[in-house]
Amino acid sequence: MFVLRKNPKSKIQNPKLIDVLTQLPTINALKQPTSSAWVKQAMPAAGYAYANLDIILLDHSHCERKAAGVALNMMFRYPSNTKMVRELTAIAREELEHFELVNQWLERRNIPLAPLPPPPYGAGLKAVVRPKEPERFLDSLLVTGLIEARSHERLGLLAAHCPEPELAKFYRGLMASEARHYGIYWVLAATYFDKEIVMKRLDELAIIESQLLATLHPEPRIHS
Amino acid sequence: MFVLRKNPKSKIQNPKLIDVLTQLPTINALKQPTSSAWVKQAMPAAGYAYANLDIILLDHSHCERKAAGVALNMMFRYPSNTKMVRELTAIAREELEHFELVNQWLERRNIPLAPLPPPPYGAGLKAVVRPKEPERFLDSLLVTGLIEARSHERLGLLAAHCPEPELAKFYRGLMASEARHYGIYWVLAATYFDKEIVMKRLDELAIIESQLLATLHPEPRIHS
Repeated sequence: MFVLRKNPKSKIQNPKLIDVLTQLPTINALKQPTSSAWVKQAMPAAGYAYANLDIILLDHSHCERKAAGVALNMMFRYPSNTKMVRELTAIAREELEHFELVNQWLERRNIPLAPLPPPPYGAGLKAVVRPKEPERFLDSLLVTGLIEARSHERLGLLAAHCPEPELAKFYRGLMASEARHYGIYWVLAATYFDKEIVMKRLDELAIIESQLLATLHPEPRIHS
Repeated sequence: MFVLRKNPKSKIQNPKLIDVLTQLPTINALKQPTSSAWVKQAMPAAGYAYANLDIILLDHSHCERKAAGVALNMMFRYPSNTKMVRELTAIAREELEHFELVNQWLERRNIPLAPLPPPPYGAGLKAVVRPKEPERFLDSLLVTGLIEARSHERLGLLAAHCPEPELAKFYRGLMASEARHYGIYWVLAATYFDKEIVMKRLDELAIIESQLLATLHPEPRIHS
């Protein structure tokens, strides 16, 4: 279950936004929690390779870079939406910082940077974004927010189950940002669209998001 | 004329890279200096609107966002080039920081964020990037470096001629980064390609870059 948190160390210091966030009820954005099969796949356990943890780390690097790319693409597409541009600039900067940190972990573990075929999750969510504006804008904000919410949940699972204390601590440190990012995408959706429309569409998209993860992807990934 | 400088305040703290930079001869990357017509167009002067300075500022915002986008796209296209990924992550973060700073200037001057048709410069340079690898990679690095070198030169001109001391100081502060970025793109080209091939192609591209600016674009832009 997903709970919005405030992070006092956040670089995103927008008092107005924080106000909106605290006024929101607790959001259970994800329709289905992650299955234990995903945790087993990611973690060293009977029948699963220890190396899967390394693959997850490499995939995580790709995820952080992609998250920065998504924020930047939104700014390219909607350059006049000042509030959105301000918030997404901060998010993109933070994702790039995380990308750098994850890459340092890869270096420490002698894992070379390499392409990695993505799981069908991202493409599946992209496919349900309605192509016409303004629906495209709303769906993009909500889908990106859902991905952040799921990332938050899964980083939390990695933090809880990772057998290496240092790496577990690292995952715990990143969790709060993902939660905050989800909150920002939600608040942006509620800024540019009627709240009822946002809630209805979020509900529809959240069902699809959980369905996409109902069958475990055979390769270990953050969103397998 | 373009001269590489070291910036002690730089966030890009890669001792190896600094070593390479100091070993390089002074680079006169730009074949032709910017014409006085460009300065006249950008600055409040007889026959030119004061508002042009504001348009330049808005265009500058787009340039910083685009520069971050270019760095990110290169990382998407060549995810295994560790040295490149490391350097471009730092560049993308810095460009986003500048984007934020420019946008704060826009806000202070009550200039709303808005799309702005770009001058033909960027598309003209993109058109000469050879489509096949590895030429595409080399050309992308060099073209991006040339744009940074030209930006460095023009921000310097804005710093020298801007009638508002605070804004002039701001431009002066950004200049050093652009010079450093140019240096990094050049060093990356020399990392992945033979130095003679790099020099020859840089020379060809620099001629094209100057030709693209030989006729002043009628609208005031950073690269008009």
